[in-house]
Amino acid sequence: MKNPTTKQAKQADEQARQAELTQPQEITRRRLLGTASAAGAAGLVAGGAGGAYGYAATTGGDPLTSVGSTAVPFHGSHQAGIVDPAQATGHLIAFDLAPGAGRKGAAALLRRWSAAAETMAAGRTPNGDNQIALDAGPSSLTVTFGFGLGFFAKTGLQNRVPENLAPIPPFSSDALDPRLSDGDLWVQIGSDDALVAFHTLRVLQKEAGDTARLRWQMNGFNRAPGATERPRTGRNLMGQIDGTNNPKPTDKDFAAKVFVSGKSGAESWLNGGSYAVVRRIRMLLDSWDHLPLDRQEMVIGRRKSDGAPLSGGTETTPVDLNKINKDGSLAIAGDAHIRVAAPASNGGAAMLRRAFSYHDGYDQDGTPNAGLLFIAWQADPFNGFIKVQQKLDRADGLSRFIRHESSALFAVPGGCAPGEYVGQRLLES
Amino acid sequence: MKNPTTKQAKQADEQARQAELTQPQEITRRRLLGTASAAGAAGLVAGGAGGAYGYAATTGGDPLTSVGSTAVPFHGSHQAGIVDPAQATGHLIAFDLAPGAGRKGAAALLRRWSAAAETMAAGRTPNGDNQIALDAGPSSLTVTFGFGLGFFAKTGLQNRVPENLAPIPPFSSDALDPRLSDGDLWVQIGSDDALVAFHTLRVLQKEAGDTARLRWQMNGFNRAPGATERPRTGRNLMGQIDGTNNPKPTDKDFAAKVFVSGKSGAESWLNGGSYAVVRRIRMLLDSWDHLPLDRQEMVIGRRKSDGAPLSGGTETTPVDLNKINKDGSLAIAGDAHIRVAAPASNGGAAMLRRAFSYHDGYDQDGTPNAGLLFIAWQADPFNGFIKVQQKLDRADGLSRFIRHESSALFAVPGGCAPGEYVGQRLLES
Repeated sequence: MKNPTTKQAKQADEQARQAELTQPQEITRRRLLGTASAAGAAGLVAGGAGGAYGYAATTGGDPLTSVGSTAVPFHGSHQAGIVDPAQATGHLIAFDLAPGAGRKGAAALLRRWSAAAETMAAGRTPNGDNQIALDAGPSSLTVTFGFGLGFFAKTGLQNRVPENLAPIPPFSSDALDPRLSDGDLWVQIGSDDALVAFHTLRVLQKEAGDTARLRWQMNGFNRAPGATERPRTGRNLMGQIDGTNNPKPTDKDFAAKVFVSGKSGAESWLNGGSYAVVRRIRMLLDSWDHLPLDRQEMVIGRRKSDGAPLSGGTETTPVDLNKINKDGSLAIAGDAHIRVAAPASNGGAAMLRRAFSYHDGYDQDGTPNAGLLFIAWQADPFNGFIKVQQKLDRADGLSRFIRHESSALFAVPGGCAPGEYVGQRLLES
Repeated sequence: MKNPTTKQAKQADEQARQAELTQPQEITRRRLLGTASAAGAAGLVAGGAGGAYGYAATTGGDPLTSVGSTAVPFHGSHQAGIVDPAQATGHLIAFDLAPGAGRKGAAALLRRWSAAAETMAAGRTPNGDNQIALDAGPSSLTVTFGFGLGFFAKTGLQNRVPENLAPIPPFSSDALDPRLSDGDLWVQIGSDDALVAFHTLRVLQKEAGDTARLRWQMNGFNRAPGATERPRTGRNLMGQIDGTNNPKPTDKDFAAKVFVSGKSGAESWLNGGSYAVVRRIRMLLDSWDHLPLDRQEMVIGRRKSDGAPLSGGTETTPVDLNKINKDGSLAIAGDAHIRVAAPASNGGAAMLRRAFSYHDGYDQDGTPNAGLLFIAWQADPFNGFIKVQQKLDRADGLSRFIRHESSALFAVPGGCAPGEYVGQRLLES
């Protein structure tokens, strides 16, 4: 932070990020135009990195569209992959630090990973690359890094563990597989191109070398950009519109809900960061698909076709939890998912959900191994996911149709400026 | 075929298909424009099915692009999903007919499947739908049906088994898992939107009911449209440009290589159809990625960056198998993949490869379970895949880096006209 050029870049970056937060329309426009020019205009790009991706133009093919040309800046006050729209392909990977890697090994790894992520997010190829993604544009690639509780013990940084990075309490409906849970380090990869995402996964795994060992890995997907006019509230594999009630970047308290701020002392490194709760939630799709439409809608509390709450209006109409039907019953049933999960039912607890669907084929009994890679972002997991899940665990009508099979909590550092790496403020101070 | 309207539609359809075969530029343009108008102009659409997909326009989202709006007609002289560009998401599913389903049950199933596929390929929703894909455009959805050897025994149609639907002979390098091989019925789903593809998978599985049971299922992917300017010769997970030497629809003998024709008697039902060889080929990516670039290029016989053969030129330059380097060595090594696989090395044997990559996470030893869902289309598998693989099995330098883990051969009937279903000419004559 002592380098004035870096500081300037960081300020410009901060401005651009703030503009993003307050102007969601602008995000959409940037995505359509391709980000290179917009990022340049905002003074975001140091050294001409953005947009200078190295695919070779060939003749006879279709032109590169915004699907390929859009670059999401790696640098910023927050890491990418939190506020940006969820991409068509996602990989979640947890690593455990090797014994003996220590703080020095961890710092070198985060430096290598940050450099590789920056390069690939700009559409360029790392040295000695395996060339899987060679011809592709950046394709909205984001890479996000997080630290689990074990990271601090293995790096001798126990005294820097953030207060809220405590184990998630068990819930009565949990069916967790410890092999698919927790982890010292977490990487979230997202891209609108599946080969760009796979390439990134392979590069980061190679860079892990002997420092970190793969613990678990999950593949997810979302609707392709351009396949629907519906904005970011996509459908999940139950067919339900998901994410309607998410905090909006235009909300006055959005940043306070999602990002850590104002911490001093041992936790100050996490300012600008967030907490990610990761749950692999299997959907019992055969049972769900057998349920008649009107019963499905009662379980959720929204109309399936357009996401409107059963209390009336359209998708974005605020839910009226007190609305009574003519027959005297509640319009939103007592155990409806949106009632039990509503901030009003949880003392204002809120989180930003940014999920991927997953489908890992079929179990031997013929049931689909599919559902949601649920990722919730919040400034405080105890006033976010944990508070809401404690209520859902007991009272949610949806519980009969889902099963939490995997769980992890990560402290996700803020973003870094050019020349820095993610986690540097923790590892080098 | 007695209905004149159906016959006219079929003729128009045939004309459109022929136009596709001879004008690949036109395919590209149609994909970009969206197919609804082009299909209408070609007189393809009976009953206004094409393009009338039922997504609800919402405000505030990105506009639907050609990714979503493109529809590939279900009806035609050949089934869709063979000559069309491979989509971003693919599902391969094999079913076994239930004991007692018989010819009648199989016919009813193919009728249900064809109706559902036609509906969804036009972007419409089947009755009682689970609405997973409700807002999406058709997204280039194709559904292709094939019959394995077991289908004929269980439907009492042993006397109609095509001569070339014989078991694929074993190869010395095979490492086949019988649970992931063969099957009575095969369904290939492709779409540029992952939710459209998953929706289709679920609908067809539901329609299978008690008539057919899931045998195996595989998920695959390709580059997203618009992520690269490179035309259909995409990269595989080794980073290699794959498919350069594929037969081209513009080749004079393309149809003769790919589609069955001129059969009479017991096999006449297969005219207009093809044979699909399906092999799940695992790539030993850790070993491959350790190999230096120049050694990788020698193993394949092409430059990795642009696909140009090591005998010189660009990607599309014909390979010169006799070219000698200055040091006296062969430019294309004796065991180079493109030498051993070349039609010139196999008496002209050729096939149309239309593959998906796959990645099913990591094995417990940390190696990626990833590679190619290889699908080869040919008029005669014994003068296509089998002939070439017999040579590759013994002599291909690439063999050390791949492992065939799954194998199946299916007879794929021709396409059907509106009002017909796929396989009707076999099952009802």
